[in-house]
Amino acid sequence: MTDRIWNFSAGPAVLPESVLEEARENLLSLGDTGVGICEHSHRGKPFVAVAEEAEALCRELAGIPDNYKVLFLQGGASTQFGMIPMNFLAKDQTADYLVTGSWSKKAVKEAKLFGNVHTVCSSEDKNFNYIPTDKTYSDSPRYVHFTSNNTIYGTQFASEPAGFSNEAFLVNDSSSDIFCRPIDVSKYGIIYAGAQKNLGPSGVTLVIIRDDLVEQGNSELTSMLQYRTHAASDSMYNTPPTFGIYLMMLVFRWIKANGGLAGMHERNKAKAGKLYEYLDSSSLFQPTADKASRSLMNVCFVTGDADKDAAFLKKADAEGFSALKGHRSVGGMRASIYNAFPSEGVDALISFMKDFEATA
Amino acid sequence: MTDRIWNFSAGPAVLPESVLEEARENLLSLGDTGVGICEHSHRGKPFVAVAEEAEALCRELAGIPDNYKVLFLQGGASTQFGMIPMNFLAKDQTADYLVTGSWSKKAVKEAKLFGNVHTVCSSEDKNFNYIPTDKTYSDSPRYVHFTSNNTIYGTQFASEPAGFSNEAFLVNDSSSDIFCRPIDVSKYGIIYAGAQKNLGPSGVTLVIIRDDLVEQGNSELTSMLQYRTHAASDSMYNTPPTFGIYLMMLVFRWIKANGGLAGMHERNKAKAGKLYEYLDSSSLFQPTADKASRSLMNVCFVTGDADKDAAFLKKADAEGFSALKGHRSVGGMRASIYNAFPSEGVDALISFMKDFEATA
Repeated sequence: MTDRIWNFSAGPAVLPESVLEEARENLLSLGDTGVGICEHSHRGKPFVAVAEEAEALCRELAGIPDNYKVLFLQGGASTQFGMIPMNFLAKDQTADYLVTGSWSKKAVKEAKLFGNVHTVCSSEDKNFNYIPTDKTYSDSPRYVHFTSNNTIYGTQFASEPAGFSNEAFLVNDSSSDIFCRPIDVSKYGIIYAGAQKNLGPSGVTLVIIRDDLVEQGNSELTSMLQYRTHAASDSMYNTPPTFGIYLMMLVFRWIKANGGLAGMHERNKAKAGKLYEYLDSSSLFQPTADKASRSLMNVCFVTGDADKDAAFLKKADAEGFSALKGHRSVGGMRASIYNAFPSEGVDALISFMKDFEATA
Repeated sequence: MTDRIWNFSAGPAVLPESVLEEARENLLSLGDTGVGICEHSHRGKPFVAVAEEAEALCRELAGIPDNYKVLFLQGGASTQFGMIPMNFLAKDQTADYLVTGSWSKKAVKEAKLFGNVHTVCSSEDKNFNYIPTDKTYSDSPRYVHFTSNNTIYGTQFASEPAGFSNEAFLVNDSSSDIFCRPIDVSKYGIIYAGAQKNLGPSGVTLVIIRDDLVEQGNSELTSMLQYRTHAASDSMYNTPPTFGIYLMMLVFRWIKANGGLAGMHERNKAKAGKLYEYLDSSSLFQPTADKASRSLMNVCFVTGDADKDAAFLKKADAEGFSALKGHRSVGGMRASIYNAFPSEGVDALISFMKDFEATA
């Protein structure tokens, strides 16, 4: 069997090896059912047990209050960019958006199709390398939307935006940092996340939504675009992405076995901490994000010399450090070190970077 | 390893064992990449090669003309029920629907949110146990929509509906019989299918759409609801369901290796043929669908006695014939024998039914 390499992909991203091994054992027969995990009816007992465990573990890990629904949908965060305003934003209403990267901008673009958008803050003036501290909310926004982690730019909110009208509800695109640390779900109206960074494979979207919002959503939309459709049928109005939900259930088990969200946070602080510490001490590599805005998930850095960046990436790739190339909007390098990325891989990367620096 | 049983699930459904074995070998490392199939970036070379092969094989198998796009989307047929009218049906326009089962009815319900719906025909008078031959189209429908196979009722169109205005385009929900036989794609404007019956796991939807329709679609919708968004980016506007597309690619390889769509057709005619032949000769079991409307994919039958049905199902389950229970709308039994269902399993079922009949 081929050795696994250090996979720094920004998403779809590395999964816990034990999760993949368990999935492998269940592809031709889920437990002793004689039917593989992808081949079970979503209405049959074996898969219903999987879906129920996925939801129960999700609730337990994040301490989700009873007045929230946990939904497993399709279409990724990009679908949520549209579903949220089409459900909650009327033509004469305003939604407040914090603009901290490309994905926030895409969410704004979709919201403008339905109502008014007020920009609370933007860090576009410095190529999104920081999370703004100055925020100006509109007087009575319908909701306040933010992107808690900015995958491309390597920035992350340290805590939830606050200070807006308490009539508004908070919406979080948490695709690239969900469950990287403990979360107080009661502060939010809606949290959504594509699974492919911290939770599982691509093709399943986790949506945590407060019951009153499920009820308030626009009832004139097609069934699949109403949250109530999915809430009323435990995400089984139509055939759900069963394999994705199964892998997510296994990832939740793995998170629980590794200390829950608090355990993830300790692990992530340690991993990112040592990488930033080395970057701060390096005379070759510089981190690109503002110190106060640094992401635990995506660590972006450059040499300041495109040729050296290219030489580094080429050597890294040859030595089994994969997908380190930064997004074209930032250039340089990006180490995506989500929950499942092993600490040993960060150690190996730092050691490799030190060697490269010494001989560069 | 647990022995596999005969899985008659209506969907998600049985997959070719060789496909699952290959997927299993690639879960921790796709080929020699050192990165599992679910963990590869959708933008990286290894996954792009998978997506390109999936599209190329799909085109080759179905002889898809160059003026059609092949899209891999999310959300299932239920999402297409809404996307089609929201893209193509204006308030003052009429779309023609052939109503041959529950899924057609759901499609009609969504279309009515956008424009007028004309019912071309309906078999609801006989609990959808036949495909109507009398059809009355409206004068100038925007499109004509039909469901080529009705999973719940075990009926299937023998050929495409015809005789409507040539200004209209034909739309087919082919979720439960796609690629079960050769198809002349040029007769259609749009063909769509959830993958979980004949093509792969749940969570990926195949959409084959003519280029002029991609261009004509409503441009005021959110990005994810416009076909042009996906057509312009080769289904990678956002992160696609990578594992689902991979499995679909493997299924396409398997179809090709087994004689293509003509090979599938021969195989399916033989499998369904012997099961119907036995049912026609049985004095205990009766098929529920009209002879001329019988499906190659879902064979529905009853004893006419609910207690006997229950006794049969219980014994079948105990002997490794799984998921044979009919949908509650029809009752009795349903043997879903999609492309990947082995001929040996049909033989085993017939033998089991004969034994049951002899001792009942």
